[in-house]
Amino acid sequence: MSLTTAVPPTFRAIDVIRKKRDGIELSPSEIESFVAAYTRGDIPDYQVSAWLMAVVLRGMSRPETAALTDAMLHSGEVLDLSSLKARKVDKHSTGGVGDKTSLVLAPLVAAAGVAVPMISGRGLGHTGGTLDKLEAIPGFNVSLPVVEFRRVLKTCGCAMIGQTAEIAPADRKLYALRDVTGTVESPYLICASIMSKKLAEGIDALVLDVKTGSGAFMKSEKDAAFLAELMVETGERMGKHVVALITDMDQPLGNMIGNALEVVEVIEVLRGAGPPDLRELCIELAAWMLHLGGVSKTVAEGRQQSAKLISSGKALEKFLQMIELQGGDPEVIDDSRKLPQAQHTMQILSERSGYLASMQCEQIGTANVILGGGRERKEDSVDPAVGIVLHKKVGDRVARGEPLASIYYNAESRLQRARQMIEESCEISDAPPSTKRPLIHRIIEHRIIEKSGEKN
Amino acid sequence: MSLTTAVPPTFRAIDVIRKKRDGIELSPSEIESFVAAYTRGDIPDYQVSAWLMAVVLRGMSRPETAALTDAMLHSGEVLDLSSLKARKVDKHSTGGVGDKTSLVLAPLVAAAGVAVPMISGRGLGHTGGTLDKLEAIPGFNVSLPVVEFRRVLKTCGCAMIGQTAEIAPADRKLYALRDVTGTVESPYLICASIMSKKLAEGIDALVLDVKTGSGAFMKSEKDAAFLAELMVETGERMGKHVVALITDMDQPLGNMIGNALEVVEVIEVLRGAGPPDLRELCIELAAWMLHLGGVSKTVAEGRQQSAKLISSGKALEKFLQMIELQGGDPEVIDDSRKLPQAQHTMQILSERSGYLASMQCEQIGTANVILGGGRERKEDSVDPAVGIVLHKKVGDRVARGEPLASIYYNAESRLQRARQMIEESCEISDAPPSTKRPLIHRIIEHRIIEKSGEKN
Repeated sequence: MSLTTAVPPTFRAIDVIRKKRDGIELSPSEIESFVAAYTRGDIPDYQVSAWLMAVVLRGMSRPETAALTDAMLHSGEVLDLSSLKARKVDKHSTGGVGDKTSLVLAPLVAAAGVAVPMISGRGLGHTGGTLDKLEAIPGFNVSLPVVEFRRVLKTCGCAMIGQTAEIAPADRKLYALRDVTGTVESPYLICASIMSKKLAEGIDALVLDVKTGSGAFMKSEKDAAFLAELMVETGERMGKHVVALITDMDQPLGNMIGNALEVVEVIEVLRGAGPPDLRELCIELAAWMLHLGGVSKTVAEGRQQSAKLISSGKALEKFLQMIELQGGDPEVIDDSRKLPQAQHTMQILSERSGYLASMQCEQIGTANVILGGGRERKEDSVDPAVGIVLHKKVGDRVARGEPLASIYYNAESRLQRARQMIEESCEISDAPPSTKRPLIHRIIEHRIIEKSGEKN
Repeated sequence: MSLTTAVPPTFRAIDVIRKKRDGIELSPSEIESFVAAYTRGDIPDYQVSAWLMAVVLRGMSRPETAALTDAMLHSGEVLDLSSLKARKVDKHSTGGVGDKTSLVLAPLVAAAGVAVPMISGRGLGHTGGTLDKLEAIPGFNVSLPVVEFRRVLKTCGCAMIGQTAEIAPADRKLYALRDVTGTVESPYLICASIMSKKLAEGIDALVLDVKTGSGAFMKSEKDAAFLAELMVETGERMGKHVVALITDMDQPLGNMIGNALEVVEVIEVLRGAGPPDLRELCIELAAWMLHLGGVSKTVAEGRQQSAKLISSGKALEKFLQMIELQGGDPEVIDDSRKLPQAQHTMQILSERSGYLASMQCEQIGTANVILGGGRERKEDSVDPAVGIVLHKKVGDRVARGEPLASIYYNAESRLQRARQMIEESCEISDAPPSTKRPLIHRIIEHRIIEKSGEKN
């Protein structure tokens, strides 16, 4: 109103809120001051939540998104891994069902001489989380202090931990607030959250796996592509080489869903076996990581190298080494019975003959959560043994009475809801589906424009 | 996300926020539950501020606006004035500079036999407040308990107090939150705030004075008309007869700005004198109040009656009676020196000859705030004696060296900024302004459709 002329021109949270509300672009310094003040506790939650809602509904420009990412990144510690000679490359997925690629990629890419400092998350909603999967390995410690993380990384070339208190504290505060204020669903805020955490790892380059389909947070390819472009451009503005693969999540990835079961499937892939879709995506993502990591001239060469590291057993060896260094039981690799085992199994049989036309992928993920494989509330603990094994993939022929899936469960009380959900999620048709969705929908890559002082 | 199916279908604040964010219409029961839970303290500020921002940017449908008004109205006590035989009619202004019509209208309309139970506010931003003006009268008590308010109203037909803790507590909480979260500027929220408080007065009808121009909160006539329509329709949905006059606030109303000075001008008008614009607006608003109050068949008749009540001295007598009943010094009516007097005055002289082409009306209001006549911060006290007297109105001829305005001040330290602001706000041109803005821009009135059980 009228009195602003009488007030000294200092930073005021209310002005930042009003500008965003009115669709006026914020300056990097306004965004930086706002985020820093919130992290310090100098701006109350109720002002920040109003601002977040304005961002959800007004959007952000590319420079604003980069400034927000940068402010969140610098709200805490940025790992200095410059003492490692190898180039450091990470991968991040926007979350899916049965997506266990991180566990394959870290040892596979490290085996090629590219360092992989991977800081991951837990399951969110219907999607699984890398940390929950790693913790299915008895003894595996995902809470290493930074000094230990560095040591493991130096020794074996990869290390996998959870977010620490020192990294991007602004994101932790903002994420908790977004979760309860209906402000999660903004590509700009998602981008800043992901990119600030990933760039705080001190990496040189990043491969993004942006999921699309019924099991992804971005159901439409358009939304997935928008987020992917945004993250690639934001990374580029911050001097990092970022590539995004938009990949299919219209059905679960691989055949196994559930923490211990997914470790089993990871070991299968690292042995050169495993389901074709999972194998293909791992090779593709690894190829890009090797290319960005500077050890393969082309992506095609990266594919060949990755395949060779699997067939030679070197990738599996690296996985074993990392498990040992992080306190896990390496015997799981040769004996899957060392992993947590569910007490019961039951099969879901097809009620008719035909073709598996589609799967409601989010429902499958939710069924796993209901079995205890994920969290319905934040404070829930996760049962690593339970899960689902799919016997059919979309497009497969199915005979009446043939098993569609097996459920691994511990509590009878949880079985019925999960079973019903899986049954309802599978659609059987007379004719095979007319089109097959590709595994990799699109690749989004900007070439970093070399500018002095801009490129890292 | 996916787990909502697993949650029992109870009211959750987050769902209300998400629906509004996504532009989905909320049901009256959702709005009622949300407002009631916030008033009880069961929803935190940070969720409500996110919702408020979503309302600012998504808007509200007419039924949503009425439901919000109703929920806020019923968050506290609704006065039951049914024991009064007279019809009860109030007036509300959206706020302006030099707008002292309430002090004229309450006694004038009461003198005609229509009860005026007026609950008013304090100055906000650059605009003056009725309570601050009344308190310029030594002894006048605007904090009567409800039982005393009722007694004054019964005795003299009008009473003027401030908001009490019992009336619309949801509005008090919401307004405080809106003020610090950039969510004041929404016609839907403004409408619900005004209408919930006014309808809690137990009135039968309401005349709204919606200001437009450089000194109003709604600068454009389009915005003012939108808000006016919204309030009229909301009142109608709640069974009240509401009329809105869109009136000019492109220059101050009358000649005097400042609390004690405005009381002087009120007395002038009640004596049949005073500046023509102020007199005309008072007669016009009173005419509508008499018409809605059922004592004049037409608005034209209401004008005649109002003029007669002024010329007969009955309106002034009523003002004197109300002042006495509320503890004020009635001698101010015959001796303006009984009102607080500023220690110093100074004149602003025109630097050139020509015509007063325009005044930045908000600047004039702000100059009065700077002199101490309003609050720069909430905790400031108000100096009732200071203010500004305008010697020229827009369109008037002005000679070089002729006084444009006089400043009444107490603190030398405040004078310079106020003086500069007034000087800068007056634009002198060679030719007279080509168009004259009308005092009353538009009248907005819906006829209440008589439906059984809907009309009060």
